[in-house]
Amino acid sequence: MINIGIIGAGRIGKVHAESITNHVKEAQVVAIADPITNAATLSWANNLGIYKVYTDYHDIINDNNIDAVLICSSTDTHADIAIEAIKANKNVFCEKPISQDLAKIKAVIKALEDSNVKFQVGFNRRFDHNFEAVHRAVADGKIGDVHIVKVTSRDPAAPPIEYVKVSGGMFLDMTIHDFDMVRYLTSSDVVEVYASGTALVDPAIKDAGDIDTAIITMKLANGALAVIDNSRKADYGYDQRAEVFGSKGQVAVTNDSNSTAVISTVSGVTGEKPLYFFLERYMASFSKEISLFVKAIINNTDVPVNINDGLQPVLIAKAAKKSLDENRPVLLTEIIM
Amino acid sequence: MINIGIIGAGRIGKVHAESITNHVKEAQVVAIADPITNAATLSWANNLGIYKVYTDYHDIINDNNIDAVLICSSTDTHADIAIEAIKANKNVFCEKPISQDLAKIKAVIKALEDSNVKFQVGFNRRFDHNFEAVHRAVADGKIGDVHIVKVTSRDPAAPPIEYVKVSGGMFLDMTIHDFDMVRYLTSSDVVEVYASGTALVDPAIKDAGDIDTAIITMKLANGALAVIDNSRKADYGYDQRAEVFGSKGQVAVTNDSNSTAVISTVSGVTGEKPLYFFLERYMASFSKEISLFVKAIINNTDVPVNINDGLQPVLIAKAAKKSLDENRPVLLTEIIM
Amino acid sequence: MINIGIIGAGRIGKVHAESITNHVKEAQVVAIADPITNAATLSWANNLGIYKVYTDYHDIINDNNIDAVLICSSTDTHADIAIEAIKANKNVFCEKPISQDLAKIKAVIKALEDSNVKFQVGFNRRFDHNFEAVHRAVADGKIGDVHIVKVTSRDPAAPPIEYVKVSGGMFLDMTIHDFDMVRYLTSSDVVEVYASGTALVDPAIKDAGDIDTAIITMKLANGALAVIDNSRKADYGYDQRAEVFGSKGQVAVTNDSNSTAVISTVSGVTGEKPLYFFLERYMASFSKEISLFVKAIINNTDVPVNINDGLQPVLIAKAAKKSLDENRPVLLTEIIM
Amino acid sequence: MINIGIIGAGRIGKVHAESITNHVKEAQVVAIADPITNAATLSWANNLGIYKVYTDYHDIINDNNIDAVLICSSTDTHADIAIEAIKANKNVFCEKPISQDLAKIKAVIKALEDSNVKFQVGFNRRFDHNFEAVHRAVADGKIGDVHIVKVTSRDPAAPPIEYVKVSGGMFLDMTIHDFDMVRYLTSSDVVEVYASGTALVDPAIKDAGDIDTAIITMKLANGALAVIDNSRKADYGYDQRAEVFGSKGQVAVTNDSNSTAVISTVSGVTGEKPLYFFLERYMASFSKEISLFVKAIINNTDVPVNINDGLQPVLIAKAAKKSLDENRPVLLTEIIM
Repeated sequence: MINIGIIGAGRIGKVHAESITNHVKEAQVVAIADPITNAATLSWANNLGIYKVYTDYHDIINDNNIDAVLICSSTDTHADIAIEAIKANKNVFCEKPISQDLAKIKAVIKALEDSNVKFQVGFNRRFDHNFEAVHRAVADGKIGDVHIVKVTSRDPAAPPIEYVKVSGGMFLDMTIHDFDMVRYLTSSDVVEVYASGTALVDPAIKDAGDIDTAIITMKLANGALAVIDNSRKADYGYDQRAEVFGSKGQVAVTNDSNSTAVISTVSGVTGEKPLYFFLERYMASFSKEISLFVKAIINNTDVPVNINDGLQPVLIAKAAKKSLDENRPVLLTEIIM
Repeated sequence: MINIGIIGAGRIGKVHAESITNHVKEAQVVAIADPITNAATLSWANNLGIYKVYTDYHDIINDNNIDAVLICSSTDTHADIAIEAIKANKNVFCEKPISQDLAKIKAVIKALEDSNVKFQVGFNRRFDHNFEAVHRAVADGKIGDVHIVKVTSRDPAAPPIEYVKVSGGMFLDMTIHDFDMVRYLTSSDVVEVYASGTALVDPAIKDAGDIDTAIITMKLANGALAVIDNSRKADYGYDQRAEVFGSKGQVAVTNDSNSTAVISTVSGVTGEKPLYFFLERYMASFSKEISLFVKAIINNTDVPVNINDGLQPVLIAKAAKKSLDENRPVLLTEIIM
Repeated sequence: MINIGIIGAGRIGKVHAESITNHVKEAQVVAIADPITNAATLSWANNLGIYKVYTDYHDIINDNNIDAVLICSSTDTHADIAIEAIKANKNVFCEKPISQDLAKIKAVIKALEDSNVKFQVGFNRRFDHNFEAVHRAVADGKIGDVHIVKVTSRDPAAPPIEYVKVSGGMFLDMTIHDFDMVRYLTSSDVVEVYASGTALVDPAIKDAGDIDTAIITMKLANGALAVIDNSRKADYGYDQRAEVFGSKGQVAVTNDSNSTAVISTVSGVTGEKPLYFFLERYMASFSKEISLFVKAIINNTDVPVNINDGLQPVLIAKAAKKSLDENRPVLLTEIIM
Repeated sequence: MINIGIIGAGRIGKVHAESITNHVKEAQVVAIADPITNAATLSWANNLGIYKVYTDYHDIINDNNIDAVLICSSTDTHADIAIEAIKANKNVFCEKPISQDLAKIKAVIKALEDSNVKFQVGFNRRFDHNFEAVHRAVADGKIGDVHIVKVTSRDPAAPPIEYVKVSGGMFLDMTIHDFDMVRYLTSSDVVEVYASGTALVDPAIKDAGDIDTAIITMKLANGALAVIDNSRKADYGYDQRAEVFGSKGQVAVTNDSNSTAVISTVSGVTGEKPLYFFLERYMASFSKEISLFVKAIINNTDVPVNINDGLQPVLIAKAAKKSLDENRPVLLTEIIM
């Protein structure tokens, strides 16, 4: 039984706590830390059987009874806490992105070199049933050599403008999942990026210096081409699709919805919209990623999303931002760590 | 070049004339006969290069230059004209049903026994791309032995009540196509029928002694079970589907529509309705059936829909009507020719 | 917090125990009883926090601390245990069918008349996301008045022949869910049944006096027609579909699968098969039905599947069997309780 | 009745002749010219009722009886013949592209300025049922303001390498249809292009200095972004899809296939592949474009694809080629006519 401490009791911290309790038999959450801990959080924790609720995450890092920590705090704190946890010999599951600051990621890499704990990054979409099916079809050679990868990723609604201002920009905040998806689906690295982007959803996003609509083209190490299209707002729901085309064919996935119901009337033949909310769409992937993290600890095997998998999408996002700013294709090698 | 005379210049007679002219290279329509021939018909015929336009169909039957006649007149005249044409040594394509009177069909069979002309019945749906694909999958053994056959056949709108009154009843007028479809898809005969039917679409249909909604179960000679569901009115269009389930799997076809367009909005994910009009839905099948009739004449091979294929659905329709009237399963052997 | 005792620690008993623990926040399983209780069951129970594990179900019925019992024992014991539990003033959730013996169901009804406990029957498919969507569309008037109901229900593989022999026949064992579905989707009772059935999957099923393939037609109290098609073995997986057609249109649901992945190659355009196993297909419905049972207790409201909903499908199944034996339509009023 | 002369009796010339004869009632083909005219062509022409078969196209241009010419000769001759025809006061339908040489297109534009004949360019895909449905949905405001346009266009097999060498490159030969599609679907011009391309299908294509796989991003005058993905070889058939995403939703079309048949077995749930051959896929669009050309002549209205619609895709193709060569985004204004 792996004892887990969760740092950060926000939305994603709570999701992990609940899914571990309900679905990950080999682990239990024994402690949770959050600087702002109110009665509701205490009650929620107790109901889950989590009796140690701290305001200071050091109480988790210093707890010898804890085998692994989940870092679910705000992005700017991820790397520093990760380094502390690694030094305390804790296995670490770190929400994405590790950091928006490459120097901090570098410091985490350094800390890991001197350690032998497990370190996994929270790219949960790799454990979604649809994207897993695409990855498997490609890995199994069903479509031959990869020629073209397409990822469509559109949020159902733009975040609050205050969030946009501190988000680090759409590429680091939202597209980062899609950059990871390109790497996951193809098992190949990205070499060069060209990003075109604009603000069509909300002028306030433009005023905040960000974009809300983008098409990003990438050249991959295996010679293939990839393209992502993004929007901050798809009126019909959360649009999460992908296709990989190759020498022997194509594999594609489309959206999940609440049911397969189709209603035919004089108005047309109408099915359900895609699931709207990311927690609903991706819930199963959250428990699966933690389950595999726990298995990697127990069996002392490689984690499925390692520190380099955490680093690469940040590099791609930074190259994409540079490409957007300079309106030219940018090599990943231009991004200095 | 096969010279064709068409008897009956109504809707279906015109459809055949046009599709032969445009699509059947080995045949030409040289004459058309209809008791009611107006200027519009004459102009239409001349535009197609049909210069012999008669009011008396005997002018076609007596024309030694004509190789084949298409009988597209009203149903009650089919059999008598067919017998005359057969005796005049014409190849005959007869619209369905041959007759609603079994004695008349028997007389046609008798006439054919003393002749060696080709005789084909107009069950055009056998030549539809979708139903052909089901037939082929079954015939090729893709789904193994047939266990269950399901045909859904719903018209977009009920016919005028005056038509309903003289139609011979829904089973002989509408379901007859579906009875033929069950035989075509399974290559098996029907042995027993149980029909449940009611009038839910229009009370005037009930007053006329007919039904507009039905579910008909059949036992087939090969041991399989079949079911047809019918409605005289599907608000969303002409609903024409089928599935055949067997020991190794299932093959199913759904409706055709104007385009593959799908619009996703806050209201849902909406595709196009099924094609509404039977001529639009089945147009290609009309030229294909005539093309195969012409080929059978030229190559002296069997026609694809023979006199027995014309007889059987009438027998099934009569058994279904008897079943409905007596609320019990009826054997086809109970129907005396 | 509702304290629950589960009687029967077989497959379905365990499913309920786990889903209550993981998903039903207002209830907890405090005891489980099964005549055959081994070390594995004990360990499983303890892991779930169930510390009372009995061999005699009376220990549950006599436990004043228990608010509700789930009857998950063998079918022939359901009614007797239910009556004991009702008399002990326990709320009862009873797996389907209540009994194959109408006199026993009558006795349960009698016991309930003298009590005011909640009594719910385990027709879990009513709580499946797909069938709920059909029910809702119909109830909301989206398709107008109901004219035709179609339920396709095919198991992925036939049960062991030893099970078939004691199952009570396919209609009581398997189709009973579909009879309930017809009632649920239409909110209407069944008046008359005609069943055609045969054994095409396995001759041993025929030798056991049962069938494995059937088409059952029903006339409903609201005037609509319904049809169910069944097979004990669909090679491609568990086939669970339904459609309801009415005066304004149609609503239809198809199968769930593991992912939306579609692979296009020279061999065709291939999607995933339906989910194979009923526990996988219907898992969410099991926790939902118990959750609603618990809510009905807490709020003292009507249960969603009451004793009459448990009785009716048994009556329909018996009418269907009589119809099959006598090859004629059978009224439900012919079945004497 | 519009009298038409066809210049060029190759594949596309024959397609037009047959579809005019069979489907365009207001026009007739009275002459055809081709330098290489053999017995088979003569026989084919006579069967269609075309009795004037020339080797010199001037015989058509000089025929006062001819109202319109269809230019279906080799691409390098289009512009010169077009100018001669315009000067002879013929209405002109010119196959795409008008020319690969911008000076020649300019000369055609000049000739048209001094004339009032109709001039239509053969971008037939605008008249395809699927793409028309997308255009209409966008034009009708169904999806709001356009944000993202995606066109997937993949041929079923690469052309012979000898053809590749003289084709002018993939962008001018193949993608030109897709460039037109972006303009057609959005009713907006292209401002800037970034093209990434590579040869993954066949090394001989690389040796010939061309590419076979590409992703092209465009910025449109209306502020939207567009992307095309191309391959010279999709093993599963001719892949022709598009989607337009906007402020209120999305409209998408997928491929046509021979039937709607879906076969479910232990191997999966398999539908038909896309139609393989462009003539099969787009046949109806060829007769529709000519029909509209004829209507524009008769009614003296604007043609649906004018000289500017012919010019713009050539400009975009040249910008795309420059972008590929220089690996940078290229403005259309950089392309000098």
